[in-house]
Amino acid sequence: MSSEKELKKKLIEPRTLKGFRDFLPEAMIPREKIIARIVDVYRSYGFCPIDTPVLEYLEILMGKGGDETDKQLYRFTDSGGREVGMRFDLTVPFARFSAQHLAEIGTPFKRYHLAKVWRGENTQAGRYREFMQCDFDTIGTTSVNSDVETALVINDILERVDPRSNATFTKFQIHLNSRKILTGALDKLGLVDKSTPILRALDKLAKIGKDAVVAEMNQTAGASEEQARAILEIASAQGTNDEILEGLEKNLQENDLGTQGVADLRTILDAARAAGAPADRFVIDVSIARGLDYYTGTIFESFLTEYPKLGSVCSGGRYDNLAELYTKQTLPGVGASLGLDRLFAGLEELGMIEKTASTVDVFIPFFDASLSSKYFEIAAGLRRQGIGVELYPEPKKLGAQLKYADKKGIRLAIVVGSDEVRQGVAMLKDLRSGGQEEVKLEALAESILRTLASDPTPQGNA
Amino acid sequence: MSSEKELKKKLIEPRTLKGFRDFLPEAMIPREKIIARIVDVYRSYGFCPIDTPVLEYLEILMGKGGDETDKQLYRFTDSGGREVGMRFDLTVPFARFSAQHLAEIGTPFKRYHLAKVWRGENTQAGRYREFMQCDFDTIGTTSVNSDVETALVINDILERVDPRSNATFTKFQIHLNSRKILTGALDKLGLVDKSTPILRALDKLAKIGKDAVVAEMNQTAGASEEQARAILEIASAQGTNDEILEGLEKNLQENDLGTQGVADLRTILDAARAAGAPADRFVIDVSIARGLDYYTGTIFESFLTEYPKLGSVCSGGRYDNLAELYTKQTLPGVGASLGLDRLFAGLEELGMIEKTASTVDVFIPFFDASLSSKYFEIAAGLRRQGIGVELYPEPKKLGAQLKYADKKGIRLAIVVGSDEVRQGVAMLKDLRSGGQEEVKLEALAESILRTLASDPTPQGNA
Repeated sequence: MSSEKELKKKLIEPRTLKGFRDFLPEAMIPREKIIARIVDVYRSYGFCPIDTPVLEYLEILMGKGGDETDKQLYRFTDSGGREVGMRFDLTVPFARFSAQHLAEIGTPFKRYHLAKVWRGENTQAGRYREFMQCDFDTIGTTSVNSDVETALVINDILERVDPRSNATFTKFQIHLNSRKILTGALDKLGLVDKSTPILRALDKLAKIGKDAVVAEMNQTAGASEEQARAILEIASAQGTNDEILEGLEKNLQENDLGTQGVADLRTILDAARAAGAPADRFVIDVSIARGLDYYTGTIFESFLTEYPKLGSVCSGGRYDNLAELYTKQTLPGVGASLGLDRLFAGLEELGMIEKTASTVDVFIPFFDASLSSKYFEIAAGLRRQGIGVELYPEPKKLGAQLKYADKKGIRLAIVVGSDEVRQGVAMLKDLRSGGQEEVKLEALAESILRTLASDPTPQGNA
Repeated sequence: MSSEKELKKKLIEPRTLKGFRDFLPEAMIPREKIIARIVDVYRSYGFCPIDTPVLEYLEILMGKGGDETDKQLYRFTDSGGREVGMRFDLTVPFARFSAQHLAEIGTPFKRYHLAKVWRGENTQAGRYREFMQCDFDTIGTTSVNSDVETALVINDILERVDPRSNATFTKFQIHLNSRKILTGALDKLGLVDKSTPILRALDKLAKIGKDAVVAEMNQTAGASEEQARAILEIASAQGTNDEILEGLEKNLQENDLGTQGVADLRTILDAARAAGAPADRFVIDVSIARGLDYYTGTIFESFLTEYPKLGSVCSGGRYDNLAELYTKQTLPGVGASLGLDRLFAGLEELGMIEKTASTVDVFIPFFDASLSSKYFEIAAGLRRQGIGVELYPEPKKLGAQLKYADKKGIRLAIVVGSDEVRQGVAMLKDLRSGGQEEVKLEALAESILRTLASDPTPQGNA
């Protein structure tokens, strides 16, 4: 007997793995809201959802990505002896997916994919080992119109990112560049075969400064000081978008690729203006290069203007060939990835996330045990009119029940006792203002909707 | 050079692991639609979203679940030497979560969690190794009102499960039982300490028949033939809900627990009627026992009436103590889990899933290369009015572009050439009916909304 008791005492410590997080309702409710808005934007452009497995054959995942990614992979041998790994991004699975299903999906193909990815990163930098990516891509076309659309989707998402309201969020900018411009410039300088180390160095400009970049270009790419300074001059072009583009056009006039890159950016700016984007939303920024090798055209980064240090919250670009490791078919495309966790950290830092632990606007306290069926009837009626209702499950002092509701951020309470039932009314309490009014049961939904509309709260169910 | 070429030729075969699936748009679009409706229902009752990591310490996952689950676990040692595993259900992570965050979340606590789980199951039975669960639970209360709510949530979800329309789906039934009734009956027969093997045998009634169940009860629990037949008689009670409950009441009248179980089921039926559920929606079914040890009260299963062989699509019940492995705090609760993949297989079998590969209702072909900014302007205007629009990205024969749209199931196309721009009009084509009309650009949104409303399609963006 005593050994059984001892056994019972040995509790397993409830804990999460280092670098992994639980999300409580107050974190998840605004997250789900923003995710729903992101998906709305994707869908409004005709992007379609896909999903792929969390586990892939290791050879699929190791094919690309480089040493850094390979080291961070969660990999193991499954019980069937297969070498497998958990996806570390959504691009590699999408490349595999496209190659595998090309005949079914056809081109052009526009997909979005919101899902978790895993990287065994150093957690000291405040990084997580499990995080969410929100990718969208258009493949099977080289048309600049898909670059335009990518820019517009990024814009539309960030405009809707304030969970507190439906108002347009404006405090962000989207930086545009083109690898064609950078490659064109390198071509003119005779450095085109060194573009990878040079662009890697250039990517560090904001972090390490001009002199260190020049030194790195010399060291890793053999660029002379003069060549390196010439690249930096192009990359640091200042002025209005038009001035920068004119300067580039002049600089690159005998280089077809570079000239094409300038034309692409002009098309994007023109179309964005036609679509109604504010004039200062898009910024030509020749300094962004995006480290990854596979970008070949337009490049996108985007920043919260009040928190630029956060880094780009949504980045992407055009590439020549998505799935070359898995198919001979050339699949050009363009897309971007929203870093939901980073964006969320930014919104939190800017005070834009209001904590709420409820998904409803209305609470019904359990006031009279004999009336439980009546409470279910009232709640069902309100739900049929689109009003979410939480019922407290058990009898308790009214004050304690209302405190529970208020703490969760529920706005209204409906108090109904046997007197009220006899008279066909309910007491509608505003837990925020403290006011209350007697309302006929048949007019309850209407009163609630009126109250909520007159002073909308950023509630979970909005 | 030739070795480089050879290297390039060696493609990695694009394939998914056995038991894992890709979801293409035509599968994902209806899935996302149903998921959104499920979430809507959860939220309308005040259930809140949470999320937990895919990976947990192995000791957390191995604590419960039994040999079968342990064998199916995807487990490995991470690069930090930790023994970890991928979750095989959402209940164990929720138990761990509740124990870990109890002070923050408080009780009663109502959460939902939609997420993937992994089991290395035998794939021959048409089972998948990665699948989605949709769980909801109310913990921290023993009130039967939470049982009522669980029943109502299952009902509301299944009523909304037809992705083709907003009409109420009615072809399902929710079976109710209570472990209290079964335990009460076993108590009367002096078999209460054998309840686990007896209920396991009973669970197989529909599959293996009465005689085999009697034999198993004898073999695994030492029940006499008489005892086993007595249990089966209770479990096979036929008649209306009221008749069955009256019979049970008589049978169990001197057994407190059993009598309580009958009262619970009566309360659920009464409240469901008050909430407007049809009289034949809920069925008292004493034969359902649900194998899992941890249920102690009401039990729920639900079946599509036109496809009962599919098995229960949403099951659950009341339990006494969710998190006993991780905390000394007793956490009673009640909840259920919707098997999305099984439900979806059922809806497909019943012809309720219409294939669509588009998330929009409107298509703009790329008709005149000089007008691309105009197309972006028109599309942006429509999106601002809530109308999703897909633009074809490149010039191609109009017929080919319209065929692309029609194949994806996009309903309307807006054809605009330079003549139309000059006149401020567009040609609005109904790709389904073949009809077309000239519409003023400023009246385009209105015309589109009118056309869609007059003959709504089960489109992705509905």
